[in-house]
Amino acid sequence: MSYLEKINSPSDLKKLSIRELKAYAEEIREYIVQVVEKNGGHLASNLGAVELTIALHYVFDCPEDKFIFDVGHQSYTHKIITGRRDDFRKLRCDGGPSGFENMHESEYDAFTTGHSSTSLSVGLGIARARDLSGEKYNVVSVIGDGAFTGGMTYEALNDIGESGTRMLIVLNDNNMSISKNVGAISAYLKKLRLSRRYKVLKTTFKRGIDGIPLLGPAFVKAAEKVKIAVKKQVDNDKMFDKLGIKYYGAFDGHDIGELVYVFSQVKHLNVPVLVHVITRKGSGLYEAEHDPVKYHGVTGEPETAYKFSDVAGETLCALAAKDDKIVGVSAAMLPSTGLEKLKNEYPERCFDVGIAEQHSVSMCAGLAANGYKPYFAVYSSFLQRAFDQILHDVCINSLPVRFLIDRAGAVGSDGVTHQGLFDISYLSVLPEMCITAPRNGKDLKKIIEWTSSYDKGPVAVRYPKGYSASGDDEPSEVEYGKWELLRESKNGIYAIAVGPNMTDIALACDCGAVSARFVKPIDKGFIEKAAKQGAALVTLEENAIRGGFGEAVLEYVNSAKLPCRVINMGFSDRFCDKRTVSGALADNGLTAEALEAVIKNIISGKICKNP
Amino acid sequence: MSYLEKINSPSDLKKLSIRELKAYAEEIREYIVQVVEKNGGHLASNLGAVELTIALHYVFDCPEDKFIFDVGHQSYTHKIITGRRDDFRKLRCDGGPSGFENMHESEYDAFTTGHSSTSLSVGLGIARARDLSGEKYNVVSVIGDGAFTGGMTYEALNDIGESGTRMLIVLNDNNMSISKNVGAISAYLKKLRLSRRYKVLKTTFKRGIDGIPLLGPAFVKAAEKVKIAVKKQVDNDKMFDKLGIKYYGAFDGHDIGELVYVFSQVKHLNVPVLVHVITRKGSGLYEAEHDPVKYHGVTGEPETAYKFSDVAGETLCALAAKDDKIVGVSAAMLPSTGLEKLKNEYPERCFDVGIAEQHSVSMCAGLAANGYKPYFAVYSSFLQRAFDQILHDVCINSLPVRFLIDRAGAVGSDGVTHQGLFDISYLSVLPEMCITAPRNGKDLKKIIEWTSSYDKGPVAVRYPKGYSASGDDEPSEVEYGKWELLRESKNGIYAIAVGPNMTDIALACDCGAVSARFVKPIDKGFIEKAAKQGAALVTLEENAIRGGFGEAVLEYVNSAKLPCRVINMGFSDRFCDKRTVSGALADNGLTAEALEAVIKNIISGKICKNP
Repeated sequence: MSYLEKINSPSDLKKLSIRELKAYAEEIREYIVQVVEKNGGHLASNLGAVELTIALHYVFDCPEDKFIFDVGHQSYTHKIITGRRDDFRKLRCDGGPSGFENMHESEYDAFTTGHSSTSLSVGLGIARARDLSGEKYNVVSVIGDGAFTGGMTYEALNDIGESGTRMLIVLNDNNMSISKNVGAISAYLKKLRLSRRYKVLKTTFKRGIDGIPLLGPAFVKAAEKVKIAVKKQVDNDKMFDKLGIKYYGAFDGHDIGELVYVFSQVKHLNVPVLVHVITRKGSGLYEAEHDPVKYHGVTGEPETAYKFSDVAGETLCALAAKDDKIVGVSAAMLPSTGLEKLKNEYPERCFDVGIAEQHSVSMCAGLAANGYKPYFAVYSSFLQRAFDQILHDVCINSLPVRFLIDRAGAVGSDGVTHQGLFDISYLSVLPEMCITAPRNGKDLKKIIEWTSSYDKGPVAVRYPKGYSASGDDEPSEVEYGKWELLRESKNGIYAIAVGPNMTDIALACDCGAVSARFVKPIDKGFIEKAAKQGAALVTLEENAIRGGFGEAVLEYVNSAKLPCRVINMGFSDRFCDKRTVSGALADNGLTAEALEAVIKNIISGKICKNP
Repeated sequence: MSYLEKINSPSDLKKLSIRELKAYAEEIREYIVQVVEKNGGHLASNLGAVELTIALHYVFDCPEDKFIFDVGHQSYTHKIITGRRDDFRKLRCDGGPSGFENMHESEYDAFTTGHSSTSLSVGLGIARARDLSGEKYNVVSVIGDGAFTGGMTYEALNDIGESGTRMLIVLNDNNMSISKNVGAISAYLKKLRLSRRYKVLKTTFKRGIDGIPLLGPAFVKAAEKVKIAVKKQVDNDKMFDKLGIKYYGAFDGHDIGELVYVFSQVKHLNVPVLVHVITRKGSGLYEAEHDPVKYHGVTGEPETAYKFSDVAGETLCALAAKDDKIVGVSAAMLPSTGLEKLKNEYPERCFDVGIAEQHSVSMCAGLAANGYKPYFAVYSSFLQRAFDQILHDVCINSLPVRFLIDRAGAVGSDGVTHQGLFDISYLSVLPEMCITAPRNGKDLKKIIEWTSSYDKGPVAVRYPKGYSASGDDEPSEVEYGKWELLRESKNGIYAIAVGPNMTDIALACDCGAVSARFVKPIDKGFIEKAAKQGAALVTLEENAIRGGFGEAVLEYVNSAKLPCRVINMGFSDRFCDKRTVSGALADNGLTAEALEAVIKNIISGKICKNP
């Protein structure tokens, strides 16, 4: 019987010796590769965190002790150890474990994660709750060096350092976030990594302790020796120490023995502690270790030839060739947003600023205020973090910053934290903001080309993950604020669709079909003309109905007192954790069948057409 | 003729000697006190920055060189120097200068500021635009130690340090943001301030150079000496140096001669530089210097006895006395949100975390996930910065974090950057979020009391600046999701009002009056009943119409196919820079006259009542 089969909880794990833990780590690694190859997921980051996670569970007592995995994309080993081994085969599928830490999923998950750089703040909140209620458990935040570039981290360090409260920060440093890590923090960590102390400590730890289980006198004796070594590591010259957080490191993140002993020691310190461990992303799998960018997220699907992200990246690159005012900005997402091409061809005009959406947007505002045309390529759900900067630095000044909003709409297997279902709502409330939504790849190209000469204010282009099935027919020329009529109506009903998936639905049904290229401003001319003809309008959007495109259309029809029925179709007012795009759409009534039913109700008079 | 009258631009300034600059500084200080005592504004921070700003204008060439004042609340001297001396009498009034830096106001204002911690990001964007276009101007970001606790600062430092591009960061350190500064960063800066080098340098600089004007050989000679002294200041042990940013400091921020020479030297360095200057907030005005919290923002109006902020603070404090799970969180806003009382009475249960809204919210999420009842008291416009954290850390987990949203609605003299006109829109798009809006002080108290036992998910309480004129009559008991009927309708028209100012309008008109205590969820029961009686509903909100409360009501009426006319009144889709609350409301048709006109149109049939 393998260790993998034997271990059903952290307490099973604690019975093993360090040597056995190593064998267990290999089994976990193999199992993760097996599942991720089938289901997709984050391979490299999880392979890098196997030993680290085992060591944490060996030393701490989860779920009494609280583990917060930053982003949570490295939590597979944690899930396998904490009773979800078999379920893990359904990773990222409906009903299976989420690809991130999720407090609704297991008592072992102390919090729900998905976005970057939240773990220190959440950890401090938990630690404060513990202190106030007089409890004694440990709080452990595991954060990568990529997430460490997010501003929240610094806000939290500032507060943690002052609070002096007991919590453990494990800095899982693989010098590699999603793409190559950037920035001064990264350079500083590199210096720490290369410090002589690291090697000295390795030697100190490398004694024949592998066979000693965690409990028992032999451990205590070995630990005593280590205690001294760890104490020597207190180094007031480090940046973290300056902020009041005890720094220990750097340690080998793949040496379970070393990690176990370090964690055992710092566990007893009554102050905030940062343990710096060095891991290799993709450790143990040759391909992943040597191309961690490619293996960061494995889709589990065959690569489609031509994704929206690629179209965006290539279009921008072609525009940049003709216009030296065009620059690209990415928050640690160069490859996945298609901006890598621009970075390769025009490195001086493409800025990867780290996982720092707020800074990205305000930096773009500075560029735009001085004659440049910045394009910030970003996922819909991550742009949420820069809401105030868009409002305050971009829109109030009406600066022509361009937003390439990727993964807008349902995103599939990444689930609830990554859904791009709110951007229309949070952007369309902003005065001066223009929002566009192409209906296929060629339309995306056309709209991005159009944005390069639109300089009246900020403009967003939103497009979904993957590539639409809606074909590649040539769209008409882009005209500010005008929708594209794809098919006239024979029955006086128009489906007004936002984006490729919704356009597919509109075209599949018995109605006029319109691509709402401009989500803001809406095409009032079209609406008025349709109202005059006695038409009914059905809006379709891959976004929340609340605050969305459909409500804007309805509000206009109502305030202009047009005799025109508007039906809004979109996402309901609840979070969506469906793990496929089609499942998410169906769950929210966004199907051709549902639209046909609405059309029939209008025709049959069940829905009054012209109220 | 005084210096104040003589100087109309930075070039006039450059003709003066250091000794004359000192006299000019005193005149400016007096003038600022005079105007702020009349108009209100930020007194202490501006008095602290007089010499610093003069020295910057003496050494740099604005507007070719770009100055970005973080927050911008310390930019009065800058405005006075750059041609706005006489206009300054209309400070914060309609038509007069904004209380912050504003690029629409003057070519000397390189950017629009108002919110904290944006200046480094904007500055880097400008510096990159300069580098790309081969220009040579200087970029100077002036940031306070308070703003320095915001996460964006760190994201920007990370990028600036790596970029290596030439820009100057002036850290204006008065150990005091709006309230007493907090956090590990603050403690670290204090250490730097106390370093021996500061005093040594002061001696070096204190030579008889006061009479030397900026241009001419005597300056060059004096500067040479200083150059050496400044070079000695490069200290690789500093945190900033670790991030690739040359640190110089600390210098006396009230010694113009010292500042002029330091800036003259670092100006020529071709790398990112941080100059640390020590100022006293309120310098030169005894009262302000000794109570900078009180003098941070001077209202220019008589203090009203009992503000919404006070009600919130006192209610929370009273609840905390009975319930030890209640904790308060503030992002550097203890006095202005009324939380100071809680901090004084229950210091261990009130956390001031620095200017760090993102961290505040996620930290609250950690507290709420472990049995506590966190109340985050924050201005509406600043909460914008935590939009993603509210969505991702609070709402997805449906955690009962309580938001006390102060300054919701029009804010008066702070103007465009501080208007609280978007919170209903950006919060109501979030599933699980409950939003309430009291109609007077007693109602605020009642609703906050109610939130202490509401634990189904997050809840926001939004209330305006100041105190309503709508009296203090006793509101009915709070019931989840239920509106409060204040007056039955005699003509079948109901005004559904959000908050005190809108309730005043509703009560002043010939219609039924309803307080929409629950903005989300809306009271569907009331709407259905009203629709059955053939009523028309007019929604009134101190928020953008787009995505707001009125659209939610309209969407419900439409989707439920109720035969009920809905008219939405609220803020138009444009930014509002009116400097009085009444002016802002009038400019957006939010007056009793406008509501009366709508009522008349419905009665006369101009607006069809039941479409």
